[in-house]
Amino acid sequence: MAERVYLDWNATTPLRPEARAAMAAAFDLAGNPSSIHLEGRAARKLIEDARHQVATAVGAEPRNVVFTSGGTEANVLALQPGLVGASGEPLRRLVVSAIEHVSVLSGGQFFPSGHVEIAPVTPEGGVDLDKLRSLLAGQSPALVSVMLANNETGVIQPITEVARLVHGAGGLLHVDAVQALGKIPVDSRKLGADLISVSAHKLGGPKGAGAVVLAGDLQNFAPLLRGGGQERNRRAGTENVAGISGFGAAVAAALPALAAEMPRLTKLRERLEAGLLSFGDVAIMGAQAQRLPNTTLFAAPGVRAETAVIAFDLEGMAVSSGSACSSGKVTPSHVLNAMQVRSELVQGAIRLSSGYLTSEADIERCLEAWRKLRGVLGRG
Amino acid sequence: MAERVYLDWNATTPLRPEARAAMAAAFDLAGNPSSIHLEGRAARKLIEDARHQVATAVGAEPRNVVFTSGGTEANVLALQPGLVGASGEPLRRLVVSAIEHVSVLSGGQFFPSGHVEIAPVTPEGGVDLDKLRSLLAGQSPALVSVMLANNETGVIQPITEVARLVHGAGGLLHVDAVQALGKIPVDSRKLGADLISVSAHKLGGPKGAGAVVLAGDLQNFAPLLRGGGQERNRRAGTENVAGISGFGAAVAAALPALAAEMPRLTKLRERLEAGLLSFGDVAIMGAQAQRLPNTTLFAAPGVRAETAVIAFDLEGMAVSSGSACSSGKVTPSHVLNAMQVRSELVQGAIRLSSGYLTSEADIERCLEAWRKLRGVLGRG
Repeated sequence: MAERVYLDWNATTPLRPEARAAMAAAFDLAGNPSSIHLEGRAARKLIEDARHQVATAVGAEPRNVVFTSGGTEANVLALQPGLVGASGEPLRRLVVSAIEHVSVLSGGQFFPSGHVEIAPVTPEGGVDLDKLRSLLAGQSPALVSVMLANNETGVIQPITEVARLVHGAGGLLHVDAVQALGKIPVDSRKLGADLISVSAHKLGGPKGAGAVVLAGDLQNFAPLLRGGGQERNRRAGTENVAGISGFGAAVAAALPALAAEMPRLTKLRERLEAGLLSFGDVAIMGAQAQRLPNTTLFAAPGVRAETAVIAFDLEGMAVSSGSACSSGKVTPSHVLNAMQVRSELVQGAIRLSSGYLTSEADIERCLEAWRKLRGVLGRG
Repeated sequence: MAERVYLDWNATTPLRPEARAAMAAAFDLAGNPSSIHLEGRAARKLIEDARHQVATAVGAEPRNVVFTSGGTEANVLALQPGLVGASGEPLRRLVVSAIEHVSVLSGGQFFPSGHVEIAPVTPEGGVDLDKLRSLLAGQSPALVSVMLANNETGVIQPITEVARLVHGAGGLLHVDAVQALGKIPVDSRKLGADLISVSAHKLGGPKGAGAVVLAGDLQNFAPLLRGGGQERNRRAGTENVAGISGFGAAVAAALPALAAEMPRLTKLRERLEAGLLSFGDVAIMGAQAQRLPNTTLFAAPGVRAETAVIAFDLEGMAVSSGSACSSGKVTPSHVLNAMQVRSELVQGAIRLSSGYLTSEADIERCLEAWRKLRGVLGRG
């Protein structure tokens, strides 16, 4: 039997060998990083090394990295009312783009979540800057959250312009870079982000580790988990030493490879999309937008995504029907609805996402499977 | 050079080989447990297996286990206002014992934390039931949090009696069993706890995994991390698959060993404490109370704990000056202050805690080191 082809890297990535090795080393250490004895200090060192690696990866200071249990906790921690922007007032409004991850759309620590204001996107999947400008104008300053790259479409957002608008209106900008880190360069200074969320398992680290990275000292930044003084009193709880260490190692492995991986994955994506289009009626979402090199979201009229995912699975291939973040829930994608994609295509959106282990042969097998499936499924 | 002696098991335990193997197996799985393809289902299975193992360990139903990133998150998640007790009213008061972990003393999701009401303890380190009864009488029903065993003294709390008082007053009981699980039997039904917190790394699982276990369906139980539908909508975020799997494996390894380990560790502790006492003026905290088999907290007049921990470290031995949960912070123990231990002894409290790898030889080496150190340090 042929090996499985894994094309669901945006849901989670295979663990990098460097991360696995770092975690194995961490497992040998018994100590609690808060303990002052030799064993404790050894565990502490792993965390501080990883903090340096993660900070470097996003162009920030190590002291401004706050490790969390993943992207969701990072987003919930970042989205807190009361942070103080350039206006000097605590921010009481939350504005998020319509295509954010559910953990951002839920409003983080803003209650009730119904108070979250939504910035629309264009049909190509990028946040609509004119509409965002209107939302921010003439009202009290806001905390704004716009992701760097969308997890479903891969569309890269105009963060630098967003930052200018947000700061011009006296607000602060949170950027969910969970899906972007390791796929495109992320530089908090160039982006103008005040807070950035990142996650280990999207770039070959383990599941269960992430971070909020602050651009600088943020007045009023308060912990979500209170108790011990870990993470400079910004996140209590014994640290996931191995997970954090694996995160650091994954970042350190992924970043230097980026310059070569971006064109390689772009080329694979071009081949994939040309192939899909060659078999006939297929829509590729955000096709004209700047996208992550590894992501293709497409649909064919008459093909339902859930059926296709199962059919691909039986053909030995892991693909996704969109975001995998809502345990077993199959609901129409809020991202595609926001892009005003027509309902039939929303129902059929299939995400193919690749990564460092993806080969040309994987792409060809995927195309072969699709050629076989589309006729069968399209009649269903 | 002699091998290091590790006597700081209450801070964190060496990873059990069974947990390490389970995690290595999890690392081989690329899938996100929310994905419906083969890779996703394989990851999902590891989580559900672990859920069953953890539920069994505390006598609960698997569906009532909510995995978290550790004990602190479990405590903060559990301590939420608005849960509904037998009275039918949402609980707006929080009462905690004076010797709780800092993550409980901080009040969880009750704001401001100054509103937390404190139940005193006796000089032997157990919660004072008469005073708790007074606190609960004639007021609106409360959520009450009392730990099963204290992390510093090892003193086991009278949870069954506490549960009777709390339920009699129409409230709910949260039990922080983080330090107890794997050291003594934990049975949520016998204890009468409505919510229990547990943590993997205290019994040989990895750091970064824990759980809140509910006794049954709790009305109004709300997630702290909102977003995806993971953990039956009670804790959003991609699961720490390897960590959870390691947690399950650690529990499954620790529990069957308990019947033999309890008397073995008790005997080691008796030898240890007899030795300490034989060298002269030493106070053992909670000596007359029922304690965890593995924990000794002691002090000698004139010996400062921080100095002793460093001296022990130089002698090749990892011991603690109390709780290791507050990153580098050296503050007098709130536990010993609550027990009205006199200040000089609070400053000198040294915790020795053992576990499945601790041998008689370790205890003898510890006693030998103490004999050597106490004369030198006592003069300092």
